[in-house]
Amino acid sequence: MSQLTVLRATDYPKMPWKNGGGSTEEITRDAGEGLDGFGWRLSIADIEASGGFSLFPGYQRIITVLQGAGMTLDIDDKVSEPLLPGDPFAFRGDSQVNCALLDGAIRDFNLIYAPDRYRASLQWVDVLKPQRVFSSANTLLLFSAAEQMAANMAEHAPQLLEKHDCLQLDNETGELMEVVLYAPRASRCCLIELTKI
Amino acid sequence: MSQLTVLRATDYPKMPWKNGGGSTEEITRDAGEGLDGFGWRLSIADIEASGGFSLFPGYQRIITVLQGAGMTLDIDDKVSEPLLPGDPFAFRGDSQVNCALLDGAIRDFNLIYAPDRYRASLQWVDVLKPQRVFSSANTLLLFSAAEQMAANMAEHAPQLLEKHDCLQLDNETGELMEVVLYAPRASRCCLIELTKI
Repeated sequence: MSQLTVLRATDYPKMPWKNGGGSTEEITRDAGEGLDGFGWRLSIADIEASGGFSLFPGYQRIITVLQGAGMTLDIDDKVSEPLLPGDPFAFRGDSQVNCALLDGAIRDFNLIYAPDRYRASLQWVDVLKPQRVFSSANTLLLFSAAEQMAANMAEHAPQLLEKHDCLQLDNETGELMEVVLYAPRASRCCLIELTKI
Repeated sequence: MSQLTVLRATDYPKMPWKNGGGSTEEITRDAGEGLDGFGWRLSIADIEASGGFSLFPGYQRIITVLQGAGMTLDIDDKVSEPLLPGDPFAFRGDSQVNCALLDGAIRDFNLIYAPDRYRASLQWVDVLKPQRVFSSANTLLLFSAAEQMAANMAEHAPQLLEKHDCLQLDNETGELMEVVLYAPRASRCCLIELTKI
């Protein structure tokens, strides 16, 4: 049997950064508190000004701009292509990272995980018609970038999601789960799978 | 370092069924020969007539109609919804399964895997614009239902796929791999992840 948790964007705890350049809302994580002890963490960041990112040694990161013009990342002195809304980008938490905003403040969406503890996959899905996904991952996360969408997760009651709401389906047994995504119009959401190593 | 194998539809070995109701083309598998010894197997079946499916005790199956009107499956005396092209459906290999064709012969696409040896995920992806996917699965399979598409898999050279060609990316280390899918027009492909337990 799997367990479903509904995470509402209005409830995410918000923490300002020490350097004043932005703030982070935590969506969910596997364990631990603050910046320590998690094997994976999902969050939204508001970046108000160009500047440095925190180090997360030993972690892998995947970032996606949600709102705003976008940014480039200088990663260990190599500058990325412009990162525009909706396109995910992976980098190592060990890297020295500086972001340069293209044109004003942005919001971004972040997966940070420990690759020695978890296998991960991440993709943005365009839901044009009901979309069926099968997975036996330990944890399946569905993050909505749409104003409105719905999902049937395994044996649970259907759930309505508003913008930046998230569903977390935990499945310790590894049984194959069926997920069906619905949207009233073409909508984009992020599907993340995490499995313990 | 990952390993990429390009599997061409024109090369798939074809085997008629003993009951004469159809034939199977094997795309790829992890190990073993014939109907024995595999932990997972990917195949295409041509079903010419309504009738019984083979048993695969201990295995999980996910089937998708590729071509033809479709079918219903009678699974342990419970009849499925009509399975139409492009919609995946999961059932257990232990079940007694009879298919009833809706209107003539069909082709279908099959993943069969041992859930005590592998975790799996499967989804059909609509490629409307370049689509980026990150995964640290042991094996990533990309099966094209489009006449033409292209994919960049991790560090490998870009590959062109024609209809029913398949790319297999093996990644023993669990390093995060980046895959980018391209298509000249809206195209549908199946993305499968398999990870050893």
